[in-house]
Amino acid sequence: MTGGRRSVEEHVEHVAALLAPLRTRPTVKVPLARALNRVLAEPILAPIDLPAFRNSQMDGYAVDAAAVATVPVTLPVRGVLAAGAEMSVHEAGTARKIMTGAPIPEGADAVVPVEDTTDNSSTDGQPATVTVHRSVTAGTYVRERGSDIAAGAELLPAGQVLAPRHIAALAAVGMTEVPVRALPRVAVISTGSELVFGGTDLGPGKIFNSNGPALAASALANGAEVVSVDHSDDDAEEFALKLTHAADVAEVVITSGGVSKGDFEVVKDVLGPRGGEFVSVAMQPGGPQGTAVVDGIPVLAFPGNPVSALISFEVFTRPLLRTAAGLPAIEPLTLPLTADLTSVAGKRQFFRARRDGDGVTVVSGPGSHLIAGMSGADALLDVAADTTSLRAGDLVKVLPL
Amino acid sequence: MTGGRRSVEEHVEHVAALLAPLRTRPTVKVPLARALNRVLAEPILAPIDLPAFRNSQMDGYAVDAAAVATVPVTLPVRGVLAAGAEMSVHEAGTARKIMTGAPIPEGADAVVPVEDTTDNSSTDGQPATVTVHRSVTAGTYVRERGSDIAAGAELLPAGQVLAPRHIAALAAVGMTEVPVRALPRVAVISTGSELVFGGTDLGPGKIFNSNGPALAASALANGAEVVSVDHSDDDAEEFALKLTHAADVAEVVITSGGVSKGDFEVVKDVLGPRGGEFVSVAMQPGGPQGTAVVDGIPVLAFPGNPVSALISFEVFTRPLLRTAAGLPAIEPLTLPLTADLTSVAGKRQFFRARRDGDGVTVVSGPGSHLIAGMSGADALLDVAADTTSLRAGDLVKVLPL
Repeated sequence: MTGGRRSVEEHVEHVAALLAPLRTRPTVKVPLARALNRVLAEPILAPIDLPAFRNSQMDGYAVDAAAVATVPVTLPVRGVLAAGAEMSVHEAGTARKIMTGAPIPEGADAVVPVEDTTDNSSTDGQPATVTVHRSVTAGTYVRERGSDIAAGAELLPAGQVLAPRHIAALAAVGMTEVPVRALPRVAVISTGSELVFGGTDLGPGKIFNSNGPALAASALANGAEVVSVDHSDDDAEEFALKLTHAADVAEVVITSGGVSKGDFEVVKDVLGPRGGEFVSVAMQPGGPQGTAVVDGIPVLAFPGNPVSALISFEVFTRPLLRTAAGLPAIEPLTLPLTADLTSVAGKRQFFRARRDGDGVTVVSGPGSHLIAGMSGADALLDVAADTTSLRAGDLVKVLPL
Repeated sequence: MTGGRRSVEEHVEHVAALLAPLRTRPTVKVPLARALNRVLAEPILAPIDLPAFRNSQMDGYAVDAAAVATVPVTLPVRGVLAAGAEMSVHEAGTARKIMTGAPIPEGADAVVPVEDTTDNSSTDGQPATVTVHRSVTAGTYVRERGSDIAAGAELLPAGQVLAPRHIAALAAVGMTEVPVRALPRVAVISTGSELVFGGTDLGPGKIFNSNGPALAASALANGAEVVSVDHSDDDAEEFALKLTHAADVAEVVITSGGVSKGDFEVVKDVLGPRGGEFVSVAMQPGGPQGTAVVDGIPVLAFPGNPVSALISFEVFTRPLLRTAAGLPAIEPLTLPLTADLTSVAGKRQFFRARRDGDGVTVVSGPGSHLIAGMSGADALLDVAADTTSLRAGDLVKVLPL
């Protein structure tokens, strides 16, 4: 289909169907040190009890509570247990000096904190006896085996985005590799013979390529792996070749440019005859949109104006990519307009805007070439196709960028 | 100073003074493709006008508005201008077919959209004449040079965290490298002879090292570069050596363990005689805290209980690290408690909690070893030292994790 018209909602659905295969992610194992911000592919069951053994919560003396029921009482000290000590056996009526984390001797049932004791050093510098000044009940300052989590219980659910505290928990149960969702693989191809690359002088009539870097950054920022960033001149053979390469390594290919009504529309010219659909979506900016499937890989063909390309990504790709990556959706906000606004009838408008105190203000003009202007925005103000005028104070839908 | 007591606020100030040198960041240049989420070290002035030349906003015909004041009118067509075409000169009363982005011929002042024209093809497939059905005023569909941004104007301010739209703007003015704040360099040393590393069997009395991975992930998640993650047994010589190595590559060294009142406190034993301060901060968890300066590099010595270490990072390091990195602060929230709560007098308490609808609920127990429990939290509930009881519905201070 070429030249058809669609609402934004219809095109969103069309693209969602095309990208549906991305939602089924393979599982990959990554080292724990590289797992930050990755998304668990499956629930993690604790492979061991935490704590793995009964241990002391304090520096103090391991005792049996019965022996310190009446205080003060002086007990013989049977050595010192540091963290990492082997399991030992308690003799009723004695004490062992014990450090935080050291295993409670078998038969002891409480720890008296060092603050509640006075020791009497022997010649080797270690206490021979200890006087306990405060009673403790059984279980005091004892961390029971499995009291944090029992082996086999769910430590973390599938879909968890891994923050530092999750890395901590995974490390604590001894995991060195984590099963996570594979990142969606995105390739970007900018098109247009007028584009040149930064760092060289602009020739007459030329512009610097911003869509390649911008779409790559957009994909990265939303949980994708960018496997290729390429450029094609307005040359059908070159574009077809680069598309084949991109489809070979990526799960979705995003192109910019070459989809409009001009005489030289390389993306449309190449993909049209291969079953691509080029439609006019009732939105501004970003109206001309194309989709295709090349070698089994979905291709999203965005318009070439830099603002149009970025807004196409936000509207049609970002939510799907985040879902595929397992990242939380970015929810639209409802905010009051700070000033009156008129909007073009029949096309959903995405104004570049800034959240401004509690309200939202349109910044930058409507031109889809105003990329410097867009860099000053932090949101899109989303105005329905049938709305033509809004007043200051009206509540509007805002998509955070 | 060893054994002193401090409030949380006093220790926050002490650590801030120690880490003050981190706020002065060197500038590094990174390729644009790696600049996402980096922070601009200086304002970026546009090196060129955007657009760099007057160009067409539409596919259509470049004309002088005077020639189409009365319509319909048929004009001779003097060829086609694609995007990227060289500058040409307009002859009054003629038209050039022009594509979006192509340079407006010198002397032309408007573009008639293709929709408002009918062309009459010549034998070569290009229009010989065009009939214009709608008048345009001077400037219509013309993008003026510099109308997005003028050369020399500020494109982006110093301190901007670079999102995709900023990458787009930087690319559009031809930048291939971006001056950004160097990442703060952090080294982590976990200590404790009882620690073993994931993937091996736990021996008796041993636990898996979680502080190393957790503190490294915490630093990474807050804008730092983690230059070293090391471990030392409770051996003064080994720890001193690893500390020297860490101070050699990092701007701040974070250690865990060995700061408490036990017999084997390697961090305290090594750093105390070298001017380290080991104090008791009136907080739970995380009371025992140390600081030192080794070879000119600040060292933050956190306690070894995994929950204490993570909360020490959140309270004493995260805000300073984010400031140094140039990242926005994470602001505390004020939320209603969902249930009554009692709190220990005299110590500021940081309860592990979850935001739960509009309220906040304590999750996991108070034990500073409950790292699996902490992984289910998404916030810390911050209760002042002099508060001992709170009722459901009370508004409390909440630090998002």
